[in-house]
Parts: sequence; C-alpha cells; structure tokens
Amino acid sequence: MDAEQFRAAAHAAIDEIIQYFDTLPSKRVLPDIEPGYLRPLLPSSAPNSPEPWSSIQPDIASKIQPGLTHWQHPNFMAFFPATVTYPSILGELYSAAFTAPAFNWLCSPACTELEIVVLDWLAQALALPECFLSTGPTRGGGVIQGSASESVTTVLVAARERNVRRRAEEEGLVEGTLEWEDRIMELRPRLVALGSDQAHSGTAKGARIAGTRFRSIPTRLEEQFELTGPALRKVLEECERDGLEPFYLTTSMGTTNTCAVDRWAEIKAVLQEKESWRGIWVHIDAAYAGAALVAEEFQHMTPEWAEGIDSFNLNMHKWLLVNFDASCLFVRNHLDLTSALDITPSYLRNPYSETGTVTDYRNWQIPLGRRFRALKIWFVMRAYGLSGMKAHIRQGLTLGEVFSGLVGRRKDLFEIVTRPAFGLTVLRVREDVCMRALKRKINGTTSSSSDEKKKKEEEEEEEEDGTAASSALTKQIYELINARGEIYLTSSVVAGRFVIRVVSANTNAQEKYVRRAFEILVNITEEVLGVERTEEEWKGKGKEEEELRN
Amino acid sequence: MDAEQFRAAAHAAIDEIIQYFDTLPSKRVLPDIEPGYLRPLLPSSAPNSPEPWSSIQPDIASKIQPGLTHWQHPNFMAFFPATVTYPSILGELYSAAFTAPAFNWLCSPACTELEIVVLDWLAQALALPECFLSTGPTRGGGVIQGSASESVTTVLVAARERNVRRRAEEEGLVEGTLEWEDRIMELRPRLVALGSDQAHSGTAKGARIAGTRFRSIPTRLEEQFELTGPALRKVLEECERDGLEPFYLTTSMGTTNTCAVDRWAEIKAVLQEKESWRGIWVHIDAAYAGAALVAEEFQHMTPEWAEGIDSFNLNMHKWLLVNFDASCLFVRNHLDLTSALDITPSYLRNPYSETGTVTDYRNWQIPLGRRFRALKIWFVMRAYGLSGMKAHIRQGLTLGEVFSGLVGRRKDLFEIVTRPAFGLTVLRVREDVCMRALKRKINGTTSSSSDEKKKKEEEEEEEEDGTAASSALTKQIYELINARGEIYLTSSVVAGRFVIRVVSANTNAQEKYVRRAFEILVNITEEVLGVERTEEEWKGKGKEEEELRN
Repeated sequence: MDAEQFRAAAHAAIDEIIQYFDTLPSKRVLPDIEPGYLRPLLPSSAPNSPEPWSSIQPDIASKIQPGLTHWQHPNFMAFFPATVTYPSILGELYSAAFTAPAFNWLCSPACTELEIVVLDWLAQALALPECFLSTGPTRGGGVIQGSASESVTTVLVAARERNVRRRAEEEGLVEGTLEWEDRIMELRPRLVALGSDQAHSGTAKGARIAGTRFRSIPTRLEEQFELTGPALRKVLEECERDGLEPFYLTTSMGTTNTCAVDRWAEIKAVLQEKESWRGIWVHIDAAYAGAALVAEEFQHMTPEWAEGIDSFNLNMHKWLLVNFDASCLFVRNHLDLTSALDITPSYLRNPYSETGTVTDYRNWQIPLGRRFRALKIWFVMRAYGLSGMKAHIRQGLTLGEVFSGLVGRRKDLFEIVTRPAFGLTVLRVREDVCMRALKRKINGTTSSSSDEKKKKEEEEEEEEDGTAASSALTKQIYELINARGEIYLTSSVVAGRFVIRVVSANTNAQEKYVRRAFEILVNITEEVLGVERTEEEWKGKGKEEEELRN
Repeated sequence: MDAEQFRAAAHAAIDEIIQYFDTLPSKRVLPDIEPGYLRPLLPSSAPNSPEPWSSIQPDIASKIQPGLTHWQHPNFMAFFPATVTYPSILGELYSAAFTAPAFNWLCSPACTELEIVVLDWLAQALALPECFLSTGPTRGGGVIQGSASESVTTVLVAARERNVRRRAEEEGLVEGTLEWEDRIMELRPRLVALGSDQAHSGTAKGARIAGTRFRSIPTRLEEQFELTGPALRKVLEECERDGLEPFYLTTSMGTTNTCAVDRWAEIKAVLQEKESWRGIWVHIDAAYAGAALVAEEFQHMTPEWAEGIDSFNLNMHKWLLVNFDASCLFVRNHLDLTSALDITPSYLRNPYSETGTVTDYRNWQIPLGRRFRALKIWFVMRAYGLSGMKAHIRQGLTLGEVFSGLVGRRKDLFEIVTRPAFGLTVLRVREDVCMRALKRKINGTTSSSSDEKKKKEEEEEEEEDGTAASSALTKQIYELINARGEIYLTSSVVAGRFVIRVVSANTNAQEKYVRRAFEILVNITEEVLGVERTEEEWKGKGKEEEELRN
C-alpha cells in the first residue's frame, strides 16, 4: 500500500467510521450472532498474494460490524461506559504512525515527556493532592497503564516489594546476596492483600499474579457497601491472629457493583492504630467514578488523600472521553515502583534517572514497551477543554438522576437497592410484589394449591423466600430485557440479592433513550409479573407513560 | 468535534502522516533535544475552553515531532526494528472507533473471534506445530499481548501455578481451603525460573513480578552464546543441590544481544533426564527473529517444537509490519493460562468456556480489558499477503548480509563477534588494532614513554589489555557515531566485550543506507584510531569506497 493508496483507503475508512457513529441508534446494541460465527466467513489461512484495500474494507461492514457489541450505542447501559471520541481517534492515528516501543526516554522522548505533562494536567483537573503530581514534593507522578487491573497488579507488586525490602534492610541484609533472597522468600508467603468484598476482582487477580494471599473485607447493605473502619480493623486483627501480614489495601471510589465510596477517614484512622499497619499501601481504585472529580462538586473528596494514600487510578477510557486504553495511575512516590520493577542492579542506578530528570517509564509498569497514549489524552483535553469534560460528566449524572427518579416513582414495583451514584442506578423488583406474583402463578397453574395445609406452608416460607423470589424474577426480567435486544443492561448480586444495574453515560446518551429504557423495564417487569390491572390503574399507567414521553 | 470537523481533521492528519513518512530520510534519526524540552513549550494546565483542531494540529509538527526518535527512519539501525505500515495504521483507526474493553467474548464477539482466526493464520504462516493452533489437539491457541515481557510474565505465572497446583493436588489438598493456600505458599519460595544469560531481561523481571527466584545459565562466545544442554544440566543440578525447584525456562530464538538461537534438541534431552525436570515449562522467546519463520528457509526449525515446548512468542510489532503493540503468544494448552489467571472460583467454571467454544481472553492475560488488535494483523496479512511478508523479511536478511559482508572485508579493522543472523551484525574493533592505536596515542602524547622500562611494562599489559582496549575504543567510536547523529546504532556487552549491533530491517531500509552506515563506521573508526596511511593504502581505500558506492 503506497502513500496514495493509503490516502484513499484512509479517507474511505474515515467515511465508514463517521457513518458507523451516525447510524448507531438504528443498530441492535448487542450483536445477533452465535459463538463461532466468524470463522466460517473467513478463509482458513492468510492469502498468499497481497489484496487491495478495496477487497479488504467491505469485510469490515459485512463480517466484523455484525459481531460488535456497540459500546457507544445510546442504548448501551451495561457495565460502565467505555467512551471514544473523535479527538481520541486522532490520537490513536498519530500514535500508530509515530510507533515506538518507547520503553525508555531516549526511545522517543516526546512520548515520555508528553505523558508526564498531560498526567499533571489531569491530576490538576481532578484536584488530586500535590503528592500525585510530578512537580509535587514526594517524587510522585502519573503513568498510563492499560487497565485498572494492570494498575492494581503493578502497585500490588510494588507494595509487596516495599514491605519485604524494608524488613530485609532493617535486618541489615544486603540486596543481591543469597541471604537477602532467602529472607525475601521467607517473608512473602505471610503477606496478605486486602480489599472489600465489593472491590473489583482485579485485586484478587493481582494478588494471584504477585503470589500473595488475598482476604476480602465484608461490607453491608445497611452501610451502602462502603468499606468502614471497624470492618477493616476486624480483618486486620484476624490476619494478625493467623500470623499473616497485611501489606496492601484496595479502596474504591465507585465500586463496580453499586458505585460505593469507601470511608477513607475511618480507614486511615484505623491504619494509624498500630505500627505494623502504618506501612500498608493504600490504593484508590476510582476506575470509573474518578472521572466525576473533574466537576467541582466532587472535589471536596480529594484533600483527604493528601496523606495516607499511596496510589490512585482513574480510567479515562471509561467515562472520560478517551478510548481504551488509558488507565491513569498516580503514585505518591515513584521510587516505590522503580525499586520493585527496575531490574537494573543497584550499582547501575543513577541519581540522574532517580531524581526524575529523565523518566524511564518501563520501570513504572509490568511490560517493557509502551504505546504513545499521551497523544489521545492531550487531544481530548484540548478539544473538549475542562468545560467540555465537566459538561459530559454532568450530563451522565443528570441522566442517572432521571432514571433513578423514574424508578423511584414506581415504588409499587421496584426497590432502589443502594443510593444512586455517579449515574448508576441499582434496582430490583420489590419482594412483596414478587411473592404475590409467584403466588398468583402457583394459584393459576396448580389446582391443588388452594388446600389449607399448602396455603399455610406458603405463608411460612413467604418471609424467607422474599429475597429468593425477588432475585428469581428480577433475573428473569433482566434476561428478557437483554434477549429482546433493544437495550443492553448488566446485573450483579449484592448481599444475596440479584440486582439490575443501569448506567447511561456514553457520548450518545440522551434522556429519551433513558426514558425508553425505563419503559422497557416496566413493560417487561409487568409482563413477567403477569400484572392484571383495574381500569383505574390502567388509566394511571397511561397518564404516567404520557408524562414519561414528555 | 462533530462529524464534519472530524472528517476535515482526519484528512489533515492523514496528509501530515504521509508527509511525515515521505520526509523521514531528510530528518535526523534521533531528536536533537535535551531532557525536559517539552514542558516549557506547553501550558501548565489543560485549557478551560475547547480548542479547535486548527490550533491543536500545528503543535504536533512544532512540539512533538522534534522530540521523536524515528524508528522508521532508514538510518535507524538500533535495537531491533519496530515497524509500522499503512494497513496497520488503518487497523488502529478502526480499533479506536470500535473501542471496547473486550475482556470477554460478549463484550465484542468479533474482537475475540477475529483474534483466534488471525493467530491461527499466523501460526500456519510461521509453520508452528499444530499444538499452537486453536484447532489443534492440545487445547492450544494464540493470544495477542502487549509486549514480549508481558507474554513472558504471563506464562511464568502460569508455569508457577501449574507447578504448585500439581503438587498440592497430588498431596490430596482441595483448592479453596486454607490448607491448600498454606501449602501453595510453602511451595512457591523454592521455585526458580531459568533463562540463559543472554535471555531478555523480561524473564528476570517476570520472575520478580511473580515473586519467584531467577537464575541465569551461562553461555559462551565459543558456542555463539547459545544455551546448551550441558550448561542447562549444570544449573539444574546446582538448583537441586541448593534445594530449589526449577519450574520455568526461557529459551530464545534470536537473543537481543546477538540473535543467538538456543539448542532445543539438547535442552529437551536434558529435561527428560529426571522426572522432576520434565514438568518444567519451556518458553520460546522469538520476539524479533520469529518473524523470519514466514520464510520457508527457516521453517525447518519448527517441527522440533511439536513436543516439549509449552509456549512461543513473536512480536509482529518488531519485524513483521504491524505497529506496536502486537506480541503474539501461543500456548500448547490454554488451560494452563486460565487455571492460573481465571479467578472465578472452580464451582463457577463451565465446560462451555473451557472447551473453547467461547474464549474469554481476560483469562489468558494479566490485564482485564483488551484492545481490538486483531484488526491490524488481519489488514497487514491481507494487504501484504504471505508473499509480501516473506519479501520484507528477505530484504532485511539481505541487507544484513550486505552489511556483514562489508565488515568482513575490513578484517584489518573489525572483528565480527558472532555469526551474523537475522539481519543483525555484531562487531567490534580488532584488539591488535586498538592496542597499536593506543600505543601510538601514548607515544604521541607522553614524551617519557620511550624509556625502556615503560616500554616493557606496556608490552606485558598488551595481551590482557586487548579486550579492554577494544572495548574502550569500540565504545568511543559507537558514541561518536550516535553523537554525530546521521545514523542510530545500539551497543551491548557480551563475554566482557563491548560490541556494536547493527540491524537495518524497517520498511524504509535500503542498501544505500546500509552502505553509507558502513562508510560512517569506517570513517569514525579511522578517525578515532588516528589511522595514518601510506599512499598505497589510500589508493586501496579509495578503490574500496568506490566499490561501496556501486
């Protein structure tokens, strides 16, 4: 493909991409294919001779697009959003052209230097404490990782090494000796990483990769699934009792299940209670909700992180307009990363690198090479401006309020399980409604269910079966919604309850789609429940639907 | 940025990218900037209001391009190449547009399914044994990782878990119990990962991340730095003597320093000698040189890997026309990966996923989310065809032969340290030449050096100082070449010898640039050596240079 062929191909690709976005609302949000759909459509091996772009490009529309899940679709309300924007695509375009496995500064200085600058921009935009800026007082700074799970694994390994190195140094051992290695190997097996039972599974996986233990800390529905001080203390004490040494804790700003926000004031106070707890690495996983910090109304949270927090992670590729991957990890002291991940022996380290005059990002991450991802962040922050980023976040928050408001007005059907937050609503069908519906179904299908004994048994089971009934029907409703395919939602199980999660915050989200999603939710719920209404109720419902449409 | 603004911006970006490639030869290969050059050129924080593309784009030429190391420059002969091609850029463009953190099949089925297909295409193109195909008999298959170091870390963790799980299962322990966890923790500290002293540092770093020990196996110049059976046996026995358990071995097809190829027949034979050695995970790191396998003349190597090899990795983003990142990892049995990296408890596993009907690639890698990287591989394999890929590889091989041929004709100056391979030439200045040059310098600068005692001392030191003299002068020459800035080379130290590495294999490489690079090498070498020639010698040199230019 020569330059002119590329120009023509790229123009055609740009046209197709624009058309893709323009026609998204008319597509099905989830693909309508079966596993293994693609292989029969493709040759069984690569062609021997070159193919022109004119024979490659049509396959994208005919073979690839039918197999895509459309994360930018306005009816995509599943997981968390994964946004892409035009300036971000331009960033990827230049990044590909300027390709370099930029593992150290000299491999492409602009790649490293722009990353340092835009992550400082981002830290400022989020009102993060100074300790997370490259210009701050603690050798802090940001680094772009691929995903929040990669960020967690990276800091978990750094925390593990910080713990065992400190201990070995205190004991007077010398790095590079067999005694040092043996002692490190003795210390590691007692280490235990912690996270609440709501923390993303990336922490448990990170601990597996790092070869440490992992314990989860229970949270409670009554406390909105927030990690509390007392719950943390209890697990810390249990670990000590079992001879284990906690070294790392994932806290969350916006958990995956319900967008819970952990209680840092309590957590930090507990960690001060014992000398051995003070060295525990505290990470904030703000993968999704951290984006909200660009809006001033959330920035009251961040001063609390100026002390006692070792790292913070936000995925711009979720809610903040940059396409995957752009997981922005900030650390209080980058030497914690480089001490763990730089395998250059200590006698080769130099103050020039370590004071930050030159940053070799390979020592801030697990892989060696890295892409030029700062470009897309730079383009997005400039093309949107802080004002545009705030407007996007507030739009998502507003849509969340609209949806949770609608749900709240149907207390006859739904229960909002946790306080709606960051655009996310977590709901289920009311237990009593489900119990009545199940009873109706049993009455309708089982002729013998009218006998007295059976009736009494049913009443006894009623209370304890409320949760099970709600879970069963909520699940049935959820599966039917996704099977019908107009909207795409995800579910979860919290405190034994099956719940539906709804969040609509990509750049194509609009109120009309959120209202339509609610209509679908209500209709399918009533269908599953087998609701029979009085004439009066139907009138009321009609009125309500009319309101919804306005 | 709306659709029409994007169309205009993207067209302008495409024009700029084409111009970038077209004007590459006229640029300096290494940037002419100092550390920290960029920050003063940029605002200290993100703009509040949106900026139009017309004010963003010019900054790429004025602020970013001056800080790039140009890996596609025809005078880039450092490290290994990191190629990018136009079809590959188109792949990134669509990948960004179709963005999804495609952690499991349903998140975007096309992303997973195309990856399975194109990695099978690639495995066939490389003539890999069937065990590495998704259609093969061993539950094998390929997965795209970010880098070879990430691939190594991933398989190293999988190998660690395979080892300790087998042991715990043999002992009748039950996964998920505290006894299981305790036993795993007891077993891990004795584990030791191995690689030759020429294996990429990614293995040592991977062991650090996985929390295991690492031992390197000596290689010898006399054996072309190949990992041999006897050297492996010696280290295995030493480990056993020390109570350690080897569980993993990185072997190399094309080491970073010299493109050495390890001796699998010997290695596999040694690993059969003891029951405890048979379970060792053997990985082939073919990050760069594996690309050569697309050419039939190298495919005689691969049948040997049909047994006894657990994984193989090739970075298409080095020599195979796909931009970073495209590290293709093939495993013999993907359950080794998923058993280690799927943290879903065993009671939730389902045969549907495990038989490969649906692949959830999140369990084949460290991060959760993943980009749609199969697109660019698909585009490149089709746009080049196998014939185009072979032609590109053979062009790199030919240029390597041209360069090593030129060096070989100046045996009066240079020594080729190891057999040239895969386009790479590793050279240094001859020891005797360096000794003579140093003596001339001493004679020229030190008036007292003519006294008899000093002369005698110098003669005695001569032999043992040959290596040091060559290293000192080769280093001086190397640094001067890069400082002059017309070409960019890298160096290394092997068997105590400072060496210059030259490899010219990106898509802009041409014979005239390789010949010019040799001219620069000779000129700067002679300058540093302070060569004084007889008239006859000058005539010879002129004739030689004339030949070079033809």
